[in-house]
Amino acid sequence: MSGNTFGNILRLTSFGESHGKAIGGILDGYPAGIKIDMEKIQHQLDRRKPGQSKLVSPRKESDRLEILSGIYEGYSTGTPIAFLIWNTDQKAKDYDHLKDKFRPSHADYVYHEKYGHRDHRGGGRSSARETIARVVAGAFASILLEKIGVSITSFVSGIGYIRIEKDFPVPDISSIEESPVRCPDAGISKQMIRLIEQTAKEGDTLGGIIKCVIQNTPVGLGEPVFDKLHADLAKAMMSINAVKGFEIGSGFDATRMKGSEHNDLFKMKDGKVATATNFSGGIQGGISNGTDIYFNVAFKPVATLMKDQITVTDQGEEVNLKGKGRHDVCVVPRAVPIVDAMAALVLADHYLRNLTANI
Amino acid sequence: MSGNTFGNILRLTSFGESHGKAIGGILDGYPAGIKIDMEKIQHQLDRRKPGQSKLVSPRKESDRLEILSGIYEGYSTGTPIAFLIWNTDQKAKDYDHLKDKFRPSHADYVYHEKYGHRDHRGGGRSSARETIARVVAGAFASILLEKIGVSITSFVSGIGYIRIEKDFPVPDISSIEESPVRCPDAGISKQMIRLIEQTAKEGDTLGGIIKCVIQNTPVGLGEPVFDKLHADLAKAMMSINAVKGFEIGSGFDATRMKGSEHNDLFKMKDGKVATATNFSGGIQGGISNGTDIYFNVAFKPVATLMKDQITVTDQGEEVNLKGKGRHDVCVVPRAVPIVDAMAALVLADHYLRNLTANI
Amino acid sequence: MSGNTFGNILRLTSFGESHGKAIGGILDGYPAGIKIDMEKIQHQLDRRKPGQSKLVSPRKESDRLEILSGIYEGYSTGTPIAFLIWNTDQKAKDYDHLKDKFRPSHADYVYHEKYGHRDHRGGGRSSARETIARVVAGAFASILLEKIGVSITSFVSGIGYIRIEKDFPVPDISSIEESPVRCPDAGISKQMIRLIEQTAKEGDTLGGIIKCVIQNTPVGLGEPVFDKLHADLAKAMMSINAVKGFEIGSGFDATRMKGSEHNDLFKMKDGKVATATNFSGGIQGGISNGTDIYFNVAFKPVATLMKDQITVTDQGEEVNLKGKGRHDVCVVPRAVPIVDAMAALVLADHYLRNLTANI
Amino acid sequence: MSGNTFGNILRLTSFGESHGKAIGGILDGYPAGIKIDMEKIQHQLDRRKPGQSKLVSPRKESDRLEILSGIYEGYSTGTPIAFLIWNTDQKAKDYDHLKDKFRPSHADYVYHEKYGHRDHRGGGRSSARETIARVVAGAFASILLEKIGVSITSFVSGIGYIRIEKDFPVPDISSIEESPVRCPDAGISKQMIRLIEQTAKEGDTLGGIIKCVIQNTPVGLGEPVFDKLHADLAKAMMSINAVKGFEIGSGFDATRMKGSEHNDLFKMKDGKVATATNFSGGIQGGISNGTDIYFNVAFKPVATLMKDQITVTDQGEEVNLKGKGRHDVCVVPRAVPIVDAMAALVLADHYLRNLTANI
Repeated sequence: MSGNTFGNILRLTSFGESHGKAIGGILDGYPAGIKIDMEKIQHQLDRRKPGQSKLVSPRKESDRLEILSGIYEGYSTGTPIAFLIWNTDQKAKDYDHLKDKFRPSHADYVYHEKYGHRDHRGGGRSSARETIARVVAGAFASILLEKIGVSITSFVSGIGYIRIEKDFPVPDISSIEESPVRCPDAGISKQMIRLIEQTAKEGDTLGGIIKCVIQNTPVGLGEPVFDKLHADLAKAMMSINAVKGFEIGSGFDATRMKGSEHNDLFKMKDGKVATATNFSGGIQGGISNGTDIYFNVAFKPVATLMKDQITVTDQGEEVNLKGKGRHDVCVVPRAVPIVDAMAALVLADHYLRNLTANI
Repeated sequence: MSGNTFGNILRLTSFGESHGKAIGGILDGYPAGIKIDMEKIQHQLDRRKPGQSKLVSPRKESDRLEILSGIYEGYSTGTPIAFLIWNTDQKAKDYDHLKDKFRPSHADYVYHEKYGHRDHRGGGRSSARETIARVVAGAFASILLEKIGVSITSFVSGIGYIRIEKDFPVPDISSIEESPVRCPDAGISKQMIRLIEQTAKEGDTLGGIIKCVIQNTPVGLGEPVFDKLHADLAKAMMSINAVKGFEIGSGFDATRMKGSEHNDLFKMKDGKVATATNFSGGIQGGISNGTDIYFNVAFKPVATLMKDQITVTDQGEEVNLKGKGRHDVCVVPRAVPIVDAMAALVLADHYLRNLTANI
Repeated sequence: MSGNTFGNILRLTSFGESHGKAIGGILDGYPAGIKIDMEKIQHQLDRRKPGQSKLVSPRKESDRLEILSGIYEGYSTGTPIAFLIWNTDQKAKDYDHLKDKFRPSHADYVYHEKYGHRDHRGGGRSSARETIARVVAGAFASILLEKIGVSITSFVSGIGYIRIEKDFPVPDISSIEESPVRCPDAGISKQMIRLIEQTAKEGDTLGGIIKCVIQNTPVGLGEPVFDKLHADLAKAMMSINAVKGFEIGSGFDATRMKGSEHNDLFKMKDGKVATATNFSGGIQGGISNGTDIYFNVAFKPVATLMKDQITVTDQGEEVNLKGKGRHDVCVVPRAVPIVDAMAALVLADHYLRNLTANI
Repeated sequence: MSGNTFGNILRLTSFGESHGKAIGGILDGYPAGIKIDMEKIQHQLDRRKPGQSKLVSPRKESDRLEILSGIYEGYSTGTPIAFLIWNTDQKAKDYDHLKDKFRPSHADYVYHEKYGHRDHRGGGRSSARETIARVVAGAFASILLEKIGVSITSFVSGIGYIRIEKDFPVPDISSIEESPVRCPDAGISKQMIRLIEQTAKEGDTLGGIIKCVIQNTPVGLGEPVFDKLHADLAKAMMSINAVKGFEIGSGFDATRMKGSEHNDLFKMKDGKVATATNFSGGIQGGISNGTDIYFNVAFKPVATLMKDQITVTDQGEEVNLKGKGRHDVCVVPRAVPIVDAMAALVLADHYLRNLTANI
């Protein structure tokens, strides 16, 4: 029960350390006969890659995806899809000075205590490089979801104290990708860039918020009690490195509203049941109701600073930790495809689960 | 994969509809040889019971717990603990007028679409009465956690627009239970009561926030990737009826902070590794670091109003829905033992999981 | 991971001790909208009941099934089906003399060592009374299987050294139920009865073999690697009390055959792919091929004798154990509905699993 | 739920097709801090390799194990251990003539029906080459078991109609490995070799039996109801390609014995509880009792013949299938390390599971 598997029918089991040989995973339960466009999958990987602009980590990773099984002549076969990305740009020496030091707000200390023996290089298993496996598996899930018309759109809605307008309409992907910070509002995007550049000069870091909208979900996905659709989305998002909060629909704002303001009244629209408002965020009683699902994911600022910090060693000595290495000032823009991926894994899994609810 | 089981080693499988024969569950994986104080378990049940004060639903439920297996001569035997509570105060007739109407922001419509056939009475399986099973199982988990010194304290920190002070110290249980709204700040508690009474008069409802603090957690609980301790806590909390948001430690505030402000610097304290601050909320890299775990859970206002609302029937006709039945204005105070319970289930499960990490 | 849950999509979690309050379970993942004939389910329960004839244990159990949830107005709702049977004929005193003694070839000693604390009365959780939950859940699974045309027929093919003819044709249920030992060959049935009566006089006990045939299985059930259909059937059968062996199709005889004798040649029959022989037992590569599935299950003789035996106590003293209590000479006839039930659970689960293989 | 994962706490997820890029898996839940002797693991792989003697398939596979994660500086880190073996000797052309033909008693037909689209080359996922992942993971499990003193010994006890003596004492590994057919009785071994050579000349094939003995198991492994230790062993063994039967302890012989013959009387031995006989096969009530666990596994003869056979195509035409390719006359000797491996996975998983039974 080491928690390296995600999903129930569609299951991703991931592996790999930042400076080990490779990062990858096995995606099991993917239905047979689905045409796989490998370019789409590589494209998602490229979206999370470091070194995309001067705003993000200069670590160069070719991150070329290699599929080992489960695809034959361009179609899925229903057998496990194993994949990996070799770790090529490993400067393990960069981490020698950290071997016995616990970096503040990193996982070094807890790994040391939990496992006794750990691969400290680049954070080992706790590195965000682990999310490569999520992005690949999520891209497969997205291909499945496309077949049933579901689309997922994530974007940066906040960095530091800067926020996009709350009711910003669901943007198209091009307006997101044109922005180096993946914020579809051009003006806000520029402010965010300025803030990142300025914070970089201070050797400091930033957090932010990603908003995700899922459209055209069929009615009925999600299970009523523990595996509510938004509970599984919450777990998926909270399992991403640096995430501190999740809210669905009205979220924390709901706590200040009255029932008469918050209730989404049902009405008929084009002969179908619809709702007048959507504070529920597309999910009621844990089950999708066919309206847009939307949620926010809160990221803390990056823990690795280019500033000195005080910390302790595994011998209990207080030491000065020098700012060093290759790191992002703000990972939120690079986390957008990760949020997309985790949302796709949850939706595709629940789509498959729902096939057996009513036969 | 119908999602009625929670946990990995310690597993709760729950059953029951609001107006069926009984609500209950099976708790499996509970270690043998633990002395069970049945009074403690009944006490937790009593804490979630309706009819505790004039502020909450007048539905009378004796909610007397019956244990069917797994306990022998006062000690757990390591076999499944089955339990149930009979549904005695069933006024099913009260729901006849709702049989074909979809109540706004309830699960009626999605159940109708997902299952075709449903028990509509009192919301059936979607009723919050389902949480009885969580409270019972959570009470068992708490007894296990007590043996290792872990304590869990939840309280109401907000109702409607009223909030307790952010840095309110961890209260003792008596100061929580003395307040009819389970808010340990006596002054704020009074304001909340007034707000509830006034809202009741309007036939309207309220939401709020519960804060939970977990103390004395051993270092090392939680798994590094998908089953991060706070990801499992998030899922647990988001699976409770009416919850719209979850944040751990600094939560959404973290998005506005800089890394240099947010990092919890390590230091030595009494010969042990400690942190100078605790924005992480007691969990780093998904694993407990021994400091206090704390998180907030956001509840939307109750969907059932004592006011008329427009809705549609399963035949697609728009109709007026009269406010009727027995319902809470604000369920947040009654949800405190549910938050306690779900937190206990997560912690106890991860405690057992961690026993095999390093043998 | 205490192993009280069986199945993947259709999941039975069982509970209960022989002399506790009740035996029962929760069947989760059962699709919505299926008409449930409660008489059929009670009938299966009655088939495993003791006291059916003078050949079996005289313990009187009313074993009246009580459904607590998941069925509404005669149809399944897709929510968990909880059920129980109260333990009414509990003569716990009968077991006082066994409290500290380990009965030979029973689970007393291993429970004592594994759990420390145990309910010794009637074997507690290790009692075959636990199989009540299997029979109930299996009966639900059978109703589901009937809808897709699958039928399951189990019968006694051997008791002690007496055997039915190997190629006995698939019998109809009435010829099985007419025999007090559930052997459809009237002549062999009489021999078996005589053997049981004679063995009873000796205070001794017998084992035997149950053969199960599953007809009209759709092609494609079973998963190719670890969850091969016959691997899951093997686990299901070996998990029944007193079972020591399992063989599918040609079974142990296959080890003496040559490939040219054993291969089931494909041929066309009525426009469909069929096989000329069926040594495979209806499963190839772990997946059903549409021909009859058949397998044998070996039961050891009952461990409780009406004879004195030497054993040891939990204090390590050697003592004489007197033959006492109410017990069967041969449980194999009563195990027929249990084999039926476990087969149905496996088939129904794999039917649901297969719905997502190819969408 | 595609069944490519085995185990509960210690979990193997495997991937790969016979003629795809690679075969491998991820072993998750392996405790941290265990010294890994890579030679031991490669050695187990070499034991299952084809081309070891003229008796087995001449397919040459270097089968060099590559570990991708989870081991650092020679010790396990508690993170997932990913591994693979590249498929190098792929003569896919050899299989072109089989693309549309269903080989008798192979998985071709059922894969075609279940998945629609399949990799037919060398049987694809249904190839016994899949067992490489089992052998590697099992070798890791064996290293864990060694630490607690458990040892596993499998050997060939029958090929075709030739059988080793029933009470052959537990052999040492060298006497097994000295025999080209892994039969520790030198005389019987020679007879088996002669039978294989003669059958090869006929273009025919053979099956056989593997016996496995597990020594020094701690008391208490196994769970009482569905996950009985021997039920999990049965599933493990029945999931190996070509296996048709499983029996634990007295097995099918038990059906002919009386209770007074079969019961294993308890006695004291060196101050410990022991049994006078061991018909139970080391497991009672599903839980290990500390005596030797032993079981038999029945393998059918290899389905691929060097003889012509009649079969059908995916278009429903009857055709002649020529004997071709590289295949074993008898796989049983090569299956010995696979039986070892699956037994080790089951035992190690139950060892970890048992750590939480009684805290």
